[in-house]
Amino acid sequence: YTSSRAKPRAHLTILKQTPGPHEQNQFPALHWEHELGLAFTKNRMNYTNKFLVIPESGDYFIYSQITFRGITSRCADISQGRQPSKPDSIIVVITKVTDNYPEPAYLLTGTKSVCEISSNWFQPLYLGAMFSLEEGDRLMVNVSDISLVDYTKEDKTFFGAFLL
Amino acid sequence: YTSSRAKPRAHLTILKQTPGPHEQNQFPALHWEHELGLAFTKNRMNYTNKFLVIPESGDYFIYSQITFRGITSRCADISQGRQPSKPDSIIVVITKVTDNYPEPAYLLTGTKSVCEISSNWFQPLYLGAMFSLEEGDRLMVNVSDISLVDYTKEDKTFFGAFLL
Amino acid sequence: YTSSRAKPRAHLTILKQTPGPHEQNQFPALHWEHELGLAFTKNRMNYTNKFLVIPESGDYFIYSQITFRGITSRCADISQGRQPSKPDSIIVVITKVTDNYPEPAYLLTGTKSVCEISSNWFQPLYLGAMFSLEEGDRLMVNVSDISLVDYTKEDKTFFGAFLL
Ligand SMILES: [Mg+2]
Repeated sequence: YTSSRAKPRAHLTILKQTPGPHEQNQFPALHWEHELGLAFTKNRMNYTNKFLVIPESGDYFIYSQITFRGITSRCADISQGRQPSKPDSIIVVITKVTDNYPEPAYLLTGTKSVCEISSNWFQPLYLGAMFSLEEGDRLMVNVSDISLVDYTKEDKTFFGAFLL
Repeated sequence: YTSSRAKPRAHLTILKQTPGPHEQNQFPALHWEHELGLAFTKNRMNYTNKFLVIPESGDYFIYSQITFRGITSRCADISQGRQPSKPDSIIVVITKVTDNYPEPAYLLTGTKSVCEISSNWFQPLYLGAMFSLEEGDRLMVNVSDISLVDYTKEDKTFFGAFLL
Repeated sequence: YTSSRAKPRAHLTILKQTPGPHEQNQFPALHWEHELGLAFTKNRMNYTNKFLVIPESGDYFIYSQITFRGITSRCADISQGRQPSKPDSIIVVITKVTDNYPEPAYLLTGTKSVCEISSNWFQPLYLGAMFSLEEGDRLMVNVSDISLVDYTKEDKTFFGAFLL
């Protein structure tokens, strides 16, 4: 088996996002820094085109924190006596894509209603868990709204995985 | 020592909960899916009757995310000028039960006041940390109110542990 | 390489904090329990003077949860029709100090606006990720306001690291 020092590992940090073509019925994927600052990939774990590519079958721990920030929220209206509307929300999904299977699989989802009475808000969503992955599986992070992601600091928004 | 591939590991995902007999002075325990979809147990880690049973002494990483959702909150009254009452809260506890010791031990607790001004809210609580466990220790997840747990998606509410 | 059982590991739990001398332009560091209850250090991982000291170069998983609680929040004014002010916030930073490098590095930051309409609020911030550390690196946890940290329970506020 693979010795500890040779195990596939990656820690990716946030970059300024350039909005790509909008894909119907799918949350947009984030792209990531993979070699500067705190970010790294090693031992055949590769980052390419928004995906981490799993080089070796096994059990991986996968984690991500996305820090969101926004300026207004429809919920503010409620305290002024209007009808409660569907709350705004922030959503993060870690998605697995497998060549042998047509549908992307949601591994981890964080979802939170955002209903702040102040005009400026910010908050993180953190996810982490273990999954059995196959060689060639690809992982990405999707968010409900890229424009709400705080991309200013590598320590606030990140994504990683390592073979156990 | 145990090689990497032979280490006890489990990732459990949420099921629809059937309320059991209410136990006085204790938060109700969740029960879990342990073999379908993303869920698995391996290498002598067993799931039985709401408990993960630790098969081998050592240091384990234990994690859980519970997604809660609710419809109303007493705190809504406050913005209409009434007295602040004790806020509603959501609580998750990962509890260890040991045969040699009568009292359950709280390993990890997440607790959050919920005071939303909208009528619908949802949010996750995430926990994760390392603990020294003994063979035979049993782990469960308790929540303040089972009826607030989102059991609809395996990727939103989960519980896992693995030997380091 | 280091076998699984001999790897440096630590799980630290919160203590009542005694405010130290205020250092300009820096968030105050928490001090921690390192041997009683759930807390432990092992295999040359040392805790000294608020710092975890890394005994061996390699990739570490580092995590912390801080539970905050407070009584009032300026944001409450907003619902009474005043101008939105800068929201109160809670901040946690896991900081790395290296002898060879003058500036502390922020490894992980959790930051959340706090804008509750109730008079009592509480909530956790959780962080966790993998980092490549060098022998002699020191880790601490800094918070925006020590007086808001819940130090009453070892399972609510903690800090740990382990070599992968
Ligand atoms: Mg709120």
